[in-house]
Amino acid sequence: MLLNCDLGESYGNWAMGDDAGVMPYIDQASIACGFHAGDPVTMQRTLALAAEHAVTIGAHPAYPDIVGFGRRSMVLSREEIIANLLYQVAALDGMARSQGLTLSYVKPHGALYHDMMSDQSVRSALLEAVARYAGRKQPLSLMLQATANAQEHRAEALALGVPLLFEVFADRCYDDTGSLLPRSQPGAVHDRERTLAQVAQLQNERAVTTQSGNSLHLEFDTLCVHGDNPEGVAAIAAIRELLNGG
Amino acid sequence: MLLNCDLGESYGNWAMGDDAGVMPYIDQASIACGFHAGDPVTMQRTLALAAEHAVTIGAHPAYPDIVGFGRRSMVLSREEIIANLLYQVAALDGMARSQGLTLSYVKPHGALYHDMMSDQSVRSALLEAVARYAGRKQPLSLMLQATANAQEHRAEALALGVPLLFEVFADRCYDDTGSLLPRSQPGAVHDRERTLAQVAQLQNERAVTTQSGNSLHLEFDTLCVHGDNPEGVAAIAAIRELLNGG
Amino acid sequence: MLLNCDLGESYGNWAMGDDAGVMPYIDQASIACGFHAGDPVTMQRTLALAAEHAVTIGAHPAYPDIVGFGRRSMVLSREEIIANLLYQVAALDGMARSQGLTLSYVKPHGALYHDMMSDQSVRSALLEAVARYAGRKQPLSLMLQATANAQEHRAEALALGVPLLFEVFADRCYDDTGSLLPRSQPGAVHDRERTLAQVAQLQNERAVTTQSGNSLHLEFDTLCVHGDNPEGVAAIAAIRELLNGG
Amino acid sequence: MLLNCDLGESYGNWAMGDDAGVMPYIDQASIACGFHAGDPVTMQRTLALAAEHAVTIGAHPAYPDIVGFGRRSMVLSREEIIANLLYQVAALDGMARSQGLTLSYVKPHGALYHDMMSDQSVRSALLEAVARYAGRKQPLSLMLQATANAQEHRAEALALGVPLLFEVFADRCYDDTGSLLPRSQPGAVHDRERTLAQVAQLQNERAVTTQSGNSLHLEFDTLCVHGDNPEGVAAIAAIRELLNGG
Repeated sequence: MLLNCDLGESYGNWAMGDDAGVMPYIDQASIACGFHAGDPVTMQRTLALAAEHAVTIGAHPAYPDIVGFGRRSMVLSREEIIANLLYQVAALDGMARSQGLTLSYVKPHGALYHDMMSDQSVRSALLEAVARYAGRKQPLSLMLQATANAQEHRAEALALGVPLLFEVFADRCYDDTGSLLPRSQPGAVHDRERTLAQVAQLQNERAVTTQSGNSLHLEFDTLCVHGDNPEGVAAIAAIRELLNGG
Repeated sequence: MLLNCDLGESYGNWAMGDDAGVMPYIDQASIACGFHAGDPVTMQRTLALAAEHAVTIGAHPAYPDIVGFGRRSMVLSREEIIANLLYQVAALDGMARSQGLTLSYVKPHGALYHDMMSDQSVRSALLEAVARYAGRKQPLSLMLQATANAQEHRAEALALGVPLLFEVFADRCYDDTGSLLPRSQPGAVHDRERTLAQVAQLQNERAVTTQSGNSLHLEFDTLCVHGDNPEGVAAIAAIRELLNGG
Repeated sequence: MLLNCDLGESYGNWAMGDDAGVMPYIDQASIACGFHAGDPVTMQRTLALAAEHAVTIGAHPAYPDIVGFGRRSMVLSREEIIANLLYQVAALDGMARSQGLTLSYVKPHGALYHDMMSDQSVRSALLEAVARYAGRKQPLSLMLQATANAQEHRAEALALGVPLLFEVFADRCYDDTGSLLPRSQPGAVHDRERTLAQVAQLQNERAVTTQSGNSLHLEFDTLCVHGDNPEGVAAIAAIRELLNGG
Repeated sequence: MLLNCDLGESYGNWAMGDDAGVMPYIDQASIACGFHAGDPVTMQRTLALAAEHAVTIGAHPAYPDIVGFGRRSMVLSREEIIANLLYQVAALDGMARSQGLTLSYVKPHGALYHDMMSDQSVRSALLEAVARYAGRKQPLSLMLQATANAQEHRAEALALGVPLLFEVFADRCYDDTGSLLPRSQPGAVHDRERTLAQVAQLQNERAVTTQSGNSLHLEFDTLCVHGDNPEGVAAIAAIRELLNGG
């Protein structure tokens, strides 16, 4: 089970997250590309940190909304979604290549991620953009959420030749459809103990216990962790230790 | 003698220039990369237009200043200049590749161009960024102004392995150092007749007549033309006809 | 019947609309406040033009989306809507006052206008923001579309003490609910002849003929006209002549 | 001796400074206006905090450069400087008024502050903008640095009717001209002990000991303190205690 984490979310003079603290524990870094966070200097530094720790890198593109941190849904045309995705992926890819790194995947951020999961037309535009992105030996993968609709998502991606990476969440409570409970609901975010229990269950059973107490099977490739505060970094270290059999 | 022109300078809902009108007459399109103009959709469309007319493409990066159109000098650190250049070049390069095009050169825009010509530390940062940009069969070239300092500029670029493209201007009056008269000065911008005379002189003698009446020899690769208004487009057509021996 | 028009929609180096051409014919100028268009210099110049022609001024605030020209719906929290509206209204108001002008009304722009008409929670946030805006002898008015829901809108505004200005459209086809046909539909936008017929009908009968051929009564205060191209300016001049009994 | 501090420098999802921790100790809050920091929601919250603690408020306008935090000098025209200042001051003023607060002064931020101190044309543009800002019972003051050139600055301001507020710095080492040593120089920033000694000296002698060991007399109205980290907040509390005779 791989660990992925959103990184490089500082912006200019504003710091966010403890990238240096998280990088040693993760396998995949999803790096902001300048539209919700991650100015060019931050991107350079985050890439250098990933190189130092031999972490696989992904692009973390977003709606163009710095002040909203890409968390506000926006109604973009298909042409806009495709062009915005290509721009961000290309920017990070070229900067990565110039540091000797190879971009591996694309994980949409925030509201774009949510809209990808809930709106087929957004997902279709993102898949087309990833499929169009050219000049690589291996195609880029698209990372999305493992849900009950995974087969449908696989079929859509297969039609365009885009490999998928399914992710599950360590610290979030699932409902029976494989969706996450909104953060505003009580019990939506697990404490450390429940987080580790969920990780162990995912590792051993490929399943989570949903809000209603059912066991939900999920096929997945990677586990999403969050390192934007000291508790988060400590939780990531504990998850890594658990996965290492510690 | 090649003709180069700045294109793709629309932004969102605002149109600028007649890209479709200019593209048939030019050899090299310097395309805005989103920091002074050129949102992702505009970039996609400009690249498609360049592909249609088989025009060589260059990146036209700028200081991060949309509202100032990249025309206001900004004091950036060396790290900022390098990261901003790599970001913009990479964004355009990856989008171009995804349309089957190959990026050929980098021409800084506006105040960044002026600072490159007047400030060795800015020029050095830009050269380093172009040299660092990786993953290409042939290195990118840097386009700059042909002046009396060309030998010095060649030496700087040679040390980093960056090919240079020197450009001259069709419609601007030169002083004896090879600098352009500021647009605010009388006689700084030629009318159509003087523009065509200067182009003919450049083609036949590799020289311009300066403000003081001297003949100034200039070695150059390309001629910069401007298509941001109907008169500009008509002048480009006339220059092309003249170069074609018409 | 007053004529209102959106103005000041240039941005930095990009021009939009013929503000100088339109200003002589209109009564109310809705001026962009920097979030979808209208940088500070443009705002200053538009205000000066309004002062010259003694045109009443309104603030034309938008979602924070320059590249999308405020035309893309965004999901903002109530707190964000209120703060963004107060910021934009205050910026224009203080600049207007410094030119001896008095801000008279607020007309939301683009997607914010559409969301105001279709989403009660957005409308409620906007009304609260206008009501909160302080330090004036007379309260600001909110301009919105005259529809079949006008009574409901009046009640909402009355509860907060916000005067309303209802507007109708000269060149757009209505359906029977008083909504405009989407621009994408055939017949949505009138030609000059039908525009003038609709204006005459509004003036004489306070009604429009809807797409289905019915006569729809509308109570309104002002007529919205568009001056973003030469045909638009000519149409405004013709409307003014018609209203003047010419 | 008043204490002033720059506040409201968070931006969207990024936090900066401990505004709630600092506010109880200061007299004047210089609040970011959206061009280098301080989105509308942050501005609303900072104003509410100032109201709670009955702190005098000032506008803290900057060059338009979010990603550079207003710390990079930009070459703006006089018209641009004036319009950008009026926009930012007006935005904060109207939001303040809507919370029952009265804006008291303007303190330029970062590179705009430095350019104001070193470039007479920038200072002249800022003074004109403050003088033009209208609709107030009392004129706004401009806050600037107390230096050896104070008399010249007073004369410039008097000609336009702009009151001045001179500030000194608690934690910075002065040279004999009354300029601050650049932060890059050793000894430029005082530790807590030297900071408190400088404050005591300013309070008792209206003078500082410069880098060369001379005593430099300074006339001033207010002392600038910094609260962007826990040590800064603790230092402010200690300065307040010292001023209170603790």
